Amino acid sequence: MANARTSSGPANPRFFTRSGPFDAQALAEAAGATLVPPREGSFPAGGYTGIAPLQGAGAEDVSFLDNRRYASLLEGTQAGLIIVAPAFADKVPAHSAALVSATPYLAWSRVARLFHPKAPPNPGVHPSAVVDASAVVDPSAEIGPFVVVGARAEIGPRCVIGAHAVVGDGVVLGADCRIGSQVTLSHAMVGERVIILPGARIGQDGFGFAVGPNGFETVPQLGQVVLEHDVEIGANTTIDRGSVNDTVIGAGSRLDNLVQIGHNAQLGRCCIVVAQAGISGSTVLEDYVTVAAQAGLIGHIRIGAKARIGAQCGVMSDVESGADVIGSPAMPFREFFRNVAVLRKLSKKASGPAEDGSGKG
Amino acid sequence: MANARTSSGPANPRFFTRSGPFDAQALAEAAGATLVPPREGSFPAGGYTGIAPLQGAGAEDVSFLDNRRYASLLEGTQAGLIIVAPAFADKVPAHSAALVSATPYLAWSRVARLFHPKAPPNPGVHPSAVVDASAVVDPSAEIGPFVVVGARAEIGPRCVIGAHAVVGDGVVLGADCRIGSQVTLSHAMVGERVIILPGARIGQDGFGFAVGPNGFETVPQLGQVVLEHDVEIGANTTIDRGSVNDTVIGAGSRLDNLVQIGHNAQLGRCCIVVAQAGISGSTVLEDYVTVAAQAGLIGHIRIGAKARIGAQCGVMSDVESGADVIGSPAMPFREFFRNVAVLRKLSKKASGPAEDGSGKG
Amino acid sequence: MANARTSSGPANPRFFTRSGPFDAQALAEAAGATLVPPREGSFPAGGYTGIAPLQGAGAEDVSFLDNRRYASLLEGTQAGLIIVAPAFADKVPAHSAALVSATPYLAWSRVARLFHPKAPPNPGVHPSAVVDASAVVDPSAEIGPFVVVGARAEIGPRCVIGAHAVVGDGVVLGADCRIGSQVTLSHAMVGERVIILPGARIGQDGFGFAVGPNGFETVPQLGQVVLEHDVEIGANTTIDRGSVNDTVIGAGSRLDNLVQIGHNAQLGRCCIVVAQAGISGSTVLEDYVTVAAQAGLIGHIRIGAKARIGAQCGVMSDVESGADVIGSPAMPFREFFRNVAVLRKLSKKASGPAEDGSGKG
Repeated sequence: MANARTSSGPANPRFFTRSGPFDAQALAEAAGATLVPPREGSFPAGGYTGIAPLQGAGAEDVSFLDNRRYASLLEGTQAGLIIVAPAFADKVPAHSAALVSATPYLAWSRVARLFHPKAPPNPGVHPSAVVDASAVVDPSAEIGPFVVVGARAEIGPRCVIGAHAVVGDGVVLGADCRIGSQVTLSHAMVGERVIILPGARIGQDGFGFAVGPNGFETVPQLGQVVLEHDVEIGANTTIDRGSVNDTVIGAGSRLDNLVQIGHNAQLGRCCIVVAQAGISGSTVLEDYVTVAAQAGLIGHIRIGAKARIGAQCGVMSDVESGADVIGSPAMPFREFFRNVAVLRKLSKKASGPAEDGSGKG
Repeated sequence: MANARTSSGPANPRFFTRSGPFDAQALAEAAGATLVPPREGSFPAGGYTGIAPLQGAGAEDVSFLDNRRYASLLEGTQAGLIIVAPAFADKVPAHSAALVSATPYLAWSRVARLFHPKAPPNPGVHPSAVVDASAVVDPSAEIGPFVVVGARAEIGPRCVIGAHAVVGDGVVLGADCRIGSQVTLSHAMVGERVIILPGARIGQDGFGFAVGPNGFETVPQLGQVVLEHDVEIGANTTIDRGSVNDTVIGAGSRLDNLVQIGHNAQLGRCCIVVAQAGISGSTVLEDYVTVAAQAGLIGHIRIGAKARIGAQCGVMSDVESGADVIGSPAMPFREFFRNVAVLRKLSKKASGPAEDGSGKG
Repeated sequence: MANARTSSGPANPRFFTRSGPFDAQALAEAAGATLVPPREGSFPAGGYTGIAPLQGAGAEDVSFLDNRRYASLLEGTQAGLIIVAPAFADKVPAHSAALVSATPYLAWSRVARLFHPKAPPNPGVHPSAVVDASAVVDPSAEIGPFVVVGARAEIGPRCVIGAHAVVGDGVVLGADCRIGSQVTLSHAMVGERVIILPGARIGQDGFGFAVGPNGFETVPQLGQVVLEHDVEIGANTTIDRGSVNDTVIGAGSRLDNLVQIGHNAQLGRCCIVVAQAGISGSTVLEDYVTVAAQAGLIGHIRIGAKARIGAQCGVMSDVESGADVIGSPAMPFREFFRNVAVLRKLSKKASGPAEDGSGKG
């Protein structure tokens, strides 16, 4: 049933504006790719007008092949221009031009962005917004309906603050940030070009308490959150501020939706944290670490540069640079899958041939 | 201690309105159940006035038994009318009438709804709402305080849009939808009778980026989200829009709280996704798939119709229709529990009798 | 790189106000600790002015040592006053005074709070708030911008309701509650001194439906949520109201971010639920239970007092009081780690010495 659905294709005009048309040369430049003209026929006279998947594309559409397992779609496509890796260049149909790139996904991304650029900020403060008199909002910034901007907050040039976002007292946003609807930001120093999707919570109290004579007593959380340049934060993700030191998300790092970052955690440059993963307090990720979905890292450990933490992994101790770990507790990938195989074999042996063949549980 | 708490019972009048009273026949009709009069005494003269659990119910209350392990409560109950499965019909006390149904939970649900109907929409737009002049809001819809409705959005008859919800540019809502407080909806086509609980995020950018020369570059996310008829979405759940194709939640599907749905994922009809589960990008669920709590599905796989994915399961490859899998990596239920048993036995043997009996860790 | 970052230190004045200075005696009283004067030199004439970590502290700063593994930092610190456990009292530098406490973290917490007290409420209702005429708001409470307070809701003395929070019809908040920005509260009875961080969702419909002839039918959720005194709830956490009985969070319990609590769940006093854990419907936690991060509890089970559920644990059946369990399915800690060790040994044996030594995967 899901298969039978017809999609509106990419870039439904209800939701997306479109630039163009663009000629093949302009697209090649945007893509940083090598242009190969069609072996039969010519480029469309009016240029290319948009993007489309291989199956639905026409003579004025740009399409792309990124995943080897969809290569068979090249044969039947009507796309006028196709972005491919060198290995597939000779499989492009005769009537199609090609943009050949060693990084076809990146090339595609840039072409798609050319046709569908981000809307620029619409400068000004919505009349419903509540902006403290001591806040400094750059006149080129866009402040949406019902936004609250606290005392002494600073909002940089060309920032876009979505409806209902709350920018707390003293928070600083660098240039060109995009803050989604209903984000809350407090106790935060934010760099440039930072993107935060709707509902993310940045800078609230960390989970800190001491056992007192009459129950738990909250420990004051006196640090802040630092989001460096080019960080992106997913929807409904939570990043607690530090207790004494800062919680830091390094430049270029990307967090998916529903991620939890505990107080004092420090992520290096260009880390990736996929949906529903959690990083406990005071843990350090060096640069280029990847944490896959639903993984969990205990507090006060260090993950070396370029390490990769697998999905649902439970990390209880330091991980070396460049390591690939998975499982709970975490272990090297090959060890994990060897364990799985060994246990399966032992289990089959234990259950015996009769039961195994019976089909009953 | 938790046991000692006294509950206000169901339907605290602070929070719930009440209809009725209803006589036994009306309740039997609503429930689609067979009415069995009390063996001693008669129906209450004024009808039944409400619902209550077996322990707290009185002669004018309707109660129900759904779970076999609470069957002993039948003996002492004072409930005037009890909804039961046929197997328990003869265990209903002599002073109680019975509504006998092969689907007692469904019958109970309908009786409870009769006493406590959903409040109808209160048509009109709250004066604090910001509704774009080009949006089309049906006059029978209710738009709450501080709601934002974007350009060209369409809101169908009898929709209720809760306080602070943001309905983005171009979004379409069919008839009778209920959108909770502080929901954000963008790039979304929504069917009829769709319910979205507070804080859900629908239609934001998916997690897509390419590696460029200076770090990650965001890939434009040019698809949309389609929520078909009768879909329900839990609180703080996140559903990203498609990158090229659409993210689709099939008719009648129900997602619990804090669920993550990646871009281009497609769920069939009447799927169930329980709290904190995550479904990665481009994965397809056929109809009637159940994904239990905290399970995670990798991207680009297909789950066959009626498959059941167990709690905390980690699914890394396709699952056949009708299969029951659990574990990380996923395996058939019986294999998983056999593995657990085999490992326990081996582990006991390895530790030896002395250590095992020592009681020390 | 993360290491090289310089922090603003705790309590950046952009975000935190500061009280003081305080003399050593006042700090000793606040901390409930024993004051030991410096062996060389004297107390600072003007008192102590703030807190700082051992590395960055000066002669007028208070610092503390909580974690044995940072003990070497004592040697080089310039801190004027150091909070330590008795075991470290003689390691405090000669120029520093000491506050010796059997509970140094608690002592630290109280000293930090003395320097940085919570801002008191700023009584009054922001002019943008929408407060129903039938609601009762104590005049000492602070109601932020764009807050919505429903019919017959009651807000106690000195409560602070953050921007955009929605307090539903009939909800009752006791004295001194702090409700974060963009929290939604409905069908809830809330005690005193309850703290809810931004984006938490309290009281929405539980995940309840029956299978009807044409798909799922929603079962009315007719219970409520009870948050007892001194409860704290993390950011973007979701607590569904009961279906028939109540969902209860016992006095003094603390829930971290992104936690899910299903309908009718009951938590006892002083339970701890760490980030991204989930507790399914109708499950009961007795007092002082700890549930670590990303753990999941199935519905309709009972966890005994003081039990500890490990990170990522999958609990499918009752747990005895005082037990320590981990793994999925849950088992005693020692059994889990013994299993891990046994499987590793078997797996190494199976792979053989050649492969094991080859270094290839």
